[in-house]
Amino acid sequence: MTLVGGGPGDPGLMTVAGARAVAEADVVLTDHLGPVDLAAEAAARGAEVVDVAKIPYGRQVAQERINELMVERARAGLRVVRLKGGDPFVFGRGFEEVRACEAAGVPVTVVPGVTSATAAPALAGLSLTHRGLNHDLTVVSGHVPPGHPRSLVDWGAVAAMRGTTVLIMAVRNARAIAAELVARGMDAATPAVVVENASTEGERGTESTLARLGDDRRPG
Amino acid sequence: MTLVGGGPGDPGLMTVAGARAVAEADVVLTDHLGPVDLAAEAAARGAEVVDVAKIPYGRQVAQERINELMVERARAGLRVVRLKGGDPFVFGRGFEEVRACEAAGVPVTVVPGVTSATAAPALAGLSLTHRGLNHDLTVVSGHVPPGHPRSLVDWGAVAAMRGTTVLIMAVRNARAIAAELVARGMDAATPAVVVENASTEGERGTESTLARLGDDRRPG
Repeated sequence: MTLVGGGPGDPGLMTVAGARAVAEADVVLTDHLGPVDLAAEAAARGAEVVDVAKIPYGRQVAQERINELMVERARAGLRVVRLKGGDPFVFGRGFEEVRACEAAGVPVTVVPGVTSATAAPALAGLSLTHRGLNHDLTVVSGHVPPGHPRSLVDWGAVAAMRGTTVLIMAVRNARAIAAELVARGMDAATPAVVVENASTEGERGTESTLARLGDDRRPG
Repeated sequence: MTLVGGGPGDPGLMTVAGARAVAEADVVLTDHLGPVDLAAEAAARGAEVVDVAKIPYGRQVAQERINELMVERARAGLRVVRLKGGDPFVFGRGFEEVRACEAAGVPVTVVPGVTSATAAPALAGLSLTHRGLNHDLTVVSGHVPPGHPRSLVDWGAVAAMRGTTVLIMAVRNARAIAAELVARGMDAATPAVVVENASTEGERGTESTLARLGDDRRPG
């Protein structure tokens, strides 16, 4: 089984090795976050392409069914690619899939991808570091808001970091996160940019500040 | 001018769009950190390939000469690619080159790359995130030690982050950084892995802990 990182959408942002693995695959398990054009090409040449976001399931959670599919197809001797959006080991749950395969005795090769945490800013012309300005960057998932029982983030530490902060999967909780960061001491005037739909036709960057972050995101 | 992110060494870890830009370039400015095989291919088909690490210079700093070369060649109507190792906007000084081009009226396209900060761990089988374990990761350049006059890092904040810490360009200062992080409250028993020469034949991962980090790096 080959776990392949895609780019954030544009198939040109796949790695050469990743694109080659997809081109040679018998089975491609993908979802809407990955480079859909590449999956479509695989389907057009006769590969089995499964959109795992559309797997029907009952009591079983979707991730378990994805794991099962990978293992079943690999054991049948097929070349299986699990194609992810972004890097599989940066908020991609890729490691869960690696562990499921390894537990079933299916060896896994990992092809790193381009994480949207770095690609989206770069496409918007934003450098995450600059000599003499910062020596660190922090990537935080904003899929749960500060104070949520499942939150694993020390927002005080994030606020105290001196470099660039990248919030991903944070649209819904942008306002709460910005408020928390300001409450923890981050300057409300800190420049911020909201990047949406990076590398796709709908790509849009909106200049903002930390204080206005919750207001400057596109509704939706 | 096209600023292209390479992978950490293996040309398979270039993006498809980046590899295409290099293949179509009249001039490739690169260095030893980039995918050298790709630069060699460009030279073999007659492109001008400049190893900017070998530029002779006197009073002028090397970066200024690189900027000058990009601008000169682009103004001459040549397709210029500045090929970087990793992502150009993650400790790559890429933004300085973008600014120099833009100041000279030379438009720049940026092709994001695969940063070694995420690729090196992935190639070593290490996931930077795991569901239920962490929601953040921090990337810190260790090219200057804690307490150095040019240091821009709040190591207390780094120590307080709950997720994964990636130290890059940190071999020389690993011992000092580990000691600082422990002094600032990070658990000395925190598991650590030293990854060297990622994606090349000399790739090596060594399991360690924060306390032993300075001892478990390969000498040299």
